[in-house]
Amino acid sequence: MSRGEPAALFERAVGGDRGALARLLSFVEGGGEPSRAVARLSYRSEPPYVVGITGAPGAGKSTLTDQLVTVVRSGWPAVAASDPIPGADAEPVEQIAVLAIDPTSPFTGGAILGDRARMQRHATDPTVFIRSMATRGHLGGLALAVPDALRVLGAVGIPVVVVETVGVGQVEVEVAGASDTTVVVVTPGWGDSLQAAKAGLLEVADVFVINKADRPGATEAGRDLRQMLSLGAPTEWNPPILETVSTTGEGVGALWAAVAGHRAYLRASRLLESRRAVRVEKELRKVLAARIEARLDVVAGSAEYKEAVEAVREGRADPYEVAEALLESS
Amino acid sequence: MSRGEPAALFERAVGGDRGALARLLSFVEGGGEPSRAVARLSYRSEPPYVVGITGAPGAGKSTLTDQLVTVVRSGWPAVAASDPIPGADAEPVEQIAVLAIDPTSPFTGGAILGDRARMQRHATDPTVFIRSMATRGHLGGLALAVPDALRVLGAVGIPVVVVETVGVGQVEVEVAGASDTTVVVVTPGWGDSLQAAKAGLLEVADVFVINKADRPGATEAGRDLRQMLSLGAPTEWNPPILETVSTTGEGVGALWAAVAGHRAYLRASRLLESRRAVRVEKELRKVLAARIEARLDVVAGSAEYKEAVEAVREGRADPYEVAEALLESS
Repeated sequence: MSRGEPAALFERAVGGDRGALARLLSFVEGGGEPSRAVARLSYRSEPPYVVGITGAPGAGKSTLTDQLVTVVRSGWPAVAASDPIPGADAEPVEQIAVLAIDPTSPFTGGAILGDRARMQRHATDPTVFIRSMATRGHLGGLALAVPDALRVLGAVGIPVVVVETVGVGQVEVEVAGASDTTVVVVTPGWGDSLQAAKAGLLEVADVFVINKADRPGATEAGRDLRQMLSLGAPTEWNPPILETVSTTGEGVGALWAAVAGHRAYLRASRLLESRRAVRVEKELRKVLAARIEARLDVVAGSAEYKEAVEAVREGRADPYEVAEALLESS
Repeated sequence: MSRGEPAALFERAVGGDRGALARLLSFVEGGGEPSRAVARLSYRSEPPYVVGITGAPGAGKSTLTDQLVTVVRSGWPAVAASDPIPGADAEPVEQIAVLAIDPTSPFTGGAILGDRARMQRHATDPTVFIRSMATRGHLGGLALAVPDALRVLGAVGIPVVVVETVGVGQVEVEVAGASDTTVVVVTPGWGDSLQAAKAGLLEVADVFVINKADRPGATEAGRDLRQMLSLGAPTEWNPPILETVSTTGEGVGALWAAVAGHRAYLRASRLLESRRAVRVEKELRKVLAARIEARLDVVAGSAEYKEAVEAVREGRADPYEVAEALLESS
């Protein structure tokens, strides 16, 4: 692969070549030198506006995302707080991308990939770019690959990206941290709102959606969420709790309006800028930590390491002296 | 401070000198070379049996620990599964230590220190050693200081240690990971069992205690816990859910019997050994990570780092190239 390739692909992607864009994202996923070359090109531009959709498997996130894409293409609705001229026309959204994060875990992967197929209804629409991302290869995993991919999408001129993740585990919460507006999807039924709480999603949610709201228990789920939110520290932004039925599209327009409302709040309060600055700092920390942890993994994979664990277990050594020896010999 | 001092103190502590033991633990807290010298001496012995008591502030953990100490001194009760001869006499516990972990956060510190004062009723009992630990100084914080302190207590001949922590935050869950049996304390009332779930305590609990069980809502709290536990993956050990009133001591004998039952299970299944081996491996990882992260902190504190964040924010550079430069120049 010639060193110039990412630059040539980048130029074609800016010109609208979706195959070239897909290859750039493969470089990002693959890690290593090609992903760095892509980063060099894309970090020169502003990031897109990122809407995160997260929640437990089976909450209907893929179908909801599918419906949302159609609504987003109608543009940002006029929101008083963000509009220079109240009542002005909605702000157009000429292109949109969906980044679907596929957990590699075998017991959920299948179902999620199945859902993904439904999104193919947008596959022939040149203004909608859809891409699944897996975690393999990239040093630091999705926590680094996702911000990099978002930068690429922004740099080629896509103003809005929807990132769909499964809200289980710390990594997913971190990925959600790459969003400007995070939408947490739950379903009616005891336990789901609790699972959201356990996964730390109450804290990251800017908008709540009770999907499958045509099923029994939607009112109770809303009450549970409000009760759990009231246990937390009071915040300036109170996450709205909306009801949707993703199979019919019911409530999806209101969801998009709520996202627009949150964006208007972030802009008016200048939180959009300051949060993005914090995100850059965190990403740099992650890059540094990944470089340093790579060294730790090399140490932990060695025969000397296994022998060191054994020595501590058997009372022949303490962890400090063996750590010293391991770092010196590595 | 002469290099021989920890060794001399260690000898006196083995002989029963509690002042010497207290000084050894101060070395552990303080970190640096003296703490390493103490580690060199104490990692040669078997660790004590560690009972962790955790839960939200205000759950009555200190009073419960206080009551438990009295019961523990009566010895391990005979548990059929662990006894070579069923019906044999209880196994004596000649000495016990309490390690109370003080979060340094100012808004909880005061209350917890106040509770601690109650434990002074054991202060004149030479078979009970009580010590508070704070996080300052030790590289890697409590996550490293607590295992080190436990080793010291075991090495000077104390067979059972109760570690009392506040169950909020990842560090506390990690500290709970140093226990052989983890007791999670909740109180009656909506929200407390949820907080336990959010803090990840459902997963680490070997025994649940609903303390203040004389208040309304104890039955409901038990039901909530059982319901939440049923949502998790099935496990070989089903954590018993007990009720106590720590102010009167009601139920504390049953709590100690439940801990003994869990210990018998760990021994019979040989999980005690295998878990301790995993713990040694994790501790070594933490020591290594702490050494490596110390380097990261130096990097992140530099003027070059601030300039690097600025450069990425303004689109003049990407995180990978600045990370490279930072690690090279550090």
